[in-house]
Amino acid sequence: MIARLDEEERALALRDLPEWTPVQEPEGIRRLFIFKDFVGAFGFMTKVALLAERADHHPEWSNVYNRVDITLTTHDAGGLSRRDIDLATQIDAIYS
Amino acid sequence: MIARLDEEERALALRDLPEWTPVQEPEGIRRLFIFKDFVGAFGFMTKVALLAERADHHPEWSNVYNRVDITLTTHDAGGLSRRDIDLATQIDAIYS
Repeated sequence: MIARLDEEERALALRDLPEWTPVQEPEGIRRLFIFKDFVGAFGFMTKVALLAERADHHPEWSNVYNRVDITLTTHDAGGLSRRDIDLATQIDAIYS
Repeated sequence: MIARLDEEERALALRDLPEWTPVQEPEGIRRLFIFKDFVGAFGFMTKVALLAERADHHPEWSNVYNRVDITLTTHDAGGLSRRDIDLATQIDAIYS
C-alpha cells in the first residue's frame, strides 16, 4: 500500500518540481510539455511509457500534435504519492 | 486545401464507422478503445502514431492505463474531412 503524501511532504517534494502544478480531482500534479512537432511529442511519450511500465505507475495524459499534457496521481493512495514524485522527476530528466 | 464534408458525405462516410460518435467543438468523430492493460493501449497508440505521421494527420487523444480516447478533426477544414474518415478506418483496422 502506497501512502498519500501529507502537506509537508508534498511541499518539500514539489520544491524540486517547479514546472509541475498541483491539481485537484484527482489530487495530483500536472505539466504541459511542448515539442517541435508530433515526432518530438510522441518520441517523448514513448520514453515516458517505458519508464511508467517499468515503475508500474502510469500517467493520465493527452496529446495534440506537438503538445503533451501529463497528470500524475496515485489512485490507490487517493492522491499524490512518492510514486508520482519519482515519475515526475524521471519525466523531467527525459525532457531536459 | 482539404474540404470539410457536407452533411450527405458525412452521413455516408460514417455509415462504415459505426463505433465512432460525431462530436462538436471541434466538429469531428470520437471513439474509445479499451485494452487489457497499459502495454496493450500504448502498443496500439504507437501503431496509430506511425500511421498518423505517415498521413500527416494527427489525432487528439488521451490515455489512462488501458483506455485510449481518440478524437479526429481537421482544423484546416474547420470540421470533419476525408482525412479523418481515412484515419478512422485505418485505426479500426488496427484495433480489430
